[in-house]
Amino acid sequence: MGGDHAPQSVVEGASHSLDRYPLIRFQFYGDQAKLNPLIEKYPNLSGCSEVIHTDVAISSDEKPSVALRQGKNSSMRLAVEAVQQGRAHGVISAGNTGAYMAISKILLKTIPGIERPAIATLIPTEKSACVMLDLGANIQCDVDHLVQFAIMGNIYAKERLDLKSPKVGILNVGSEELKGNAIVQQAAQVLRKIPGVINFHGFVEGDDIMEGTVDVVVTDGFTGNVALKTMEGVAKVISNFLKQSYRRGVISRLGAILSLGALRRLRQRFDPRVHNGAIFIGLGGIAIKSHGGADAVAFANAIGVAAQMISHEFNQQIECDLKEVENLLTDDPAIS
Amino acid sequence: MGGDHAPQSVVEGASHSLDRYPLIRFQFYGDQAKLNPLIEKYPNLSGCSEVIHTDVAISSDEKPSVALRQGKNSSMRLAVEAVQQGRAHGVISAGNTGAYMAISKILLKTIPGIERPAIATLIPTEKSACVMLDLGANIQCDVDHLVQFAIMGNIYAKERLDLKSPKVGILNVGSEELKGNAIVQQAAQVLRKIPGVINFHGFVEGDDIMEGTVDVVVTDGFTGNVALKTMEGVAKVISNFLKQSYRRGVISRLGAILSLGALRRLRQRFDPRVHNGAIFIGLGGIAIKSHGGADAVAFANAIGVAAQMISHEFNQQIECDLKEVENLLTDDPAIS
Repeated sequence: MGGDHAPQSVVEGASHSLDRYPLIRFQFYGDQAKLNPLIEKYPNLSGCSEVIHTDVAISSDEKPSVALRQGKNSSMRLAVEAVQQGRAHGVISAGNTGAYMAISKILLKTIPGIERPAIATLIPTEKSACVMLDLGANIQCDVDHLVQFAIMGNIYAKERLDLKSPKVGILNVGSEELKGNAIVQQAAQVLRKIPGVINFHGFVEGDDIMEGTVDVVVTDGFTGNVALKTMEGVAKVISNFLKQSYRRGVISRLGAILSLGALRRLRQRFDPRVHNGAIFIGLGGIAIKSHGGADAVAFANAIGVAAQMISHEFNQQIECDLKEVENLLTDDPAIS
Repeated sequence: MGGDHAPQSVVEGASHSLDRYPLIRFQFYGDQAKLNPLIEKYPNLSGCSEVIHTDVAISSDEKPSVALRQGKNSSMRLAVEAVQQGRAHGVISAGNTGAYMAISKILLKTIPGIERPAIATLIPTEKSACVMLDLGANIQCDVDHLVQFAIMGNIYAKERLDLKSPKVGILNVGSEELKGNAIVQQAAQVLRKIPGVINFHGFVEGDDIMEGTVDVVVTDGFTGNVALKTMEGVAKVISNFLKQSYRRGVISRLGAILSLGALRRLRQRFDPRVHNGAIFIGLGGIAIKSHGGADAVAFANAIGVAAQMISHEFNQQIECDLKEVENLLTDDPAIS
């Protein structure tokens, strides 16, 4: 029931996602009076869909603490509970991010060895895409958190970008070793010690994110959130400006028509919908956050992320790397 | 002698700037063998230019601490000394930012009441432009620093954007009052108490910067630096992509020709050169930092910023507002 176009975009997105992942079965949590007629509209959903009715939905402006206390029977909480209780392999929501993270943390707990889950997503880059985390779950981060983000982001990049040894960078105000605060410097020191697990590139700067200098950009949730939204803002302003500019005069209009190919390619390449589906990484279950403004195509992509992560036993890989890093660091007297 | 195209861009930029500010007189600090022939090329510089020779120049990768110790006779230090000793009203450099800030802090000191100078610049927005600070001088900031940045940025926006009551925002991960860390929350509380001095809008997010939601974006140097470079990265990647995309096939090429107007307007509107010239705000003298990659046009803009700030008695206005805020906060028993 969450997001700007729910439940239409959710049900239609589920139908789309079956084209690529025909084995998925769906549980739709929410108002059955709205859901049932929608599901009937998409014949491929019949036989693989179940509706679990509830009247309660967490609104987009509800505080996480209130959602936790008062949202016991909400569609969001019931859906996360299904994962907790093993009745579902993963959950996808386009609703209130803070409430979704709070409920997921309480119910799904973290992977052993992970102190804080993070929000990770793919960002389109000049070359292809990179993983960036944290995007806002943790406003303040210490050294251990950043190292854990690097380990999780590394596995995520292997899976989503099909890379053997993703290049990992820490976001900073300069690429030189001495730049930045004590936390990023110490985190970099740790990552340099575990080359068998992490292919650490070093520090990267804001412009490196979209230039694709590294495959994984590690940062605290404050900086990551500001950087992500700043990117969205620039793309939106440039796109608005081109639209207006192309309307000025006959030549510009004709130019716009002949530029459709180039502009369409720009949109396809940097369309945020292509990479819709941020993962709450580090939780003991698969929870995917769709953008609130996602349409059906975008929501289908978020479902695809869940499907991919479930089938690849993603969390087990993170646990495995965490243990290896723990052993490596314990064996190294210079660190412990 | 600093920057990618020095001293050519510096001397040519000085010549350009005389068109708009005919009363400027120049002192060029650096290698006279390079400077003199260049100055002779621009007749309008004769009679208003002096060359102060030195062989020493601080390289772009010199550490600030080393530049401070070993750069006594460097062109950068001598130029800043001229401001310190009253032989110049302001200094402009395209050289090593860290060294330039360190030397300027030592020699020019801060305005009474300002603990830390910041780097401030204009950012192009959808509406016109906004002031953003700090862009990297202060990696960690406390509440007082952010409040002082707001006071300085407010005066800077009044001058540069010709506004009576600039809207001031603090960069955060959400616009709601409860978002973010304790430092941004407490800084916001202080700014809400001084409406006579600061027209405080509240928190803004990354996408608000370029959308022009506020006229002054206040942030710590870590976040500000990442946000600025992220913006530069997105603009560069989109521009590269359009260039390549327009080369594909005859129709795209024709479209590109007819789109020249629209694309030129895009460049003019969001060209970082237009707003070249970041100010080291809060120092006891005018020190302007040009982008290292600045050409003559861009360098002339940086000179223009210095000229404008000098003639408007900018620092006195900041001192005046600082005193007013101090009085307001001392009178308010709820704060002190």
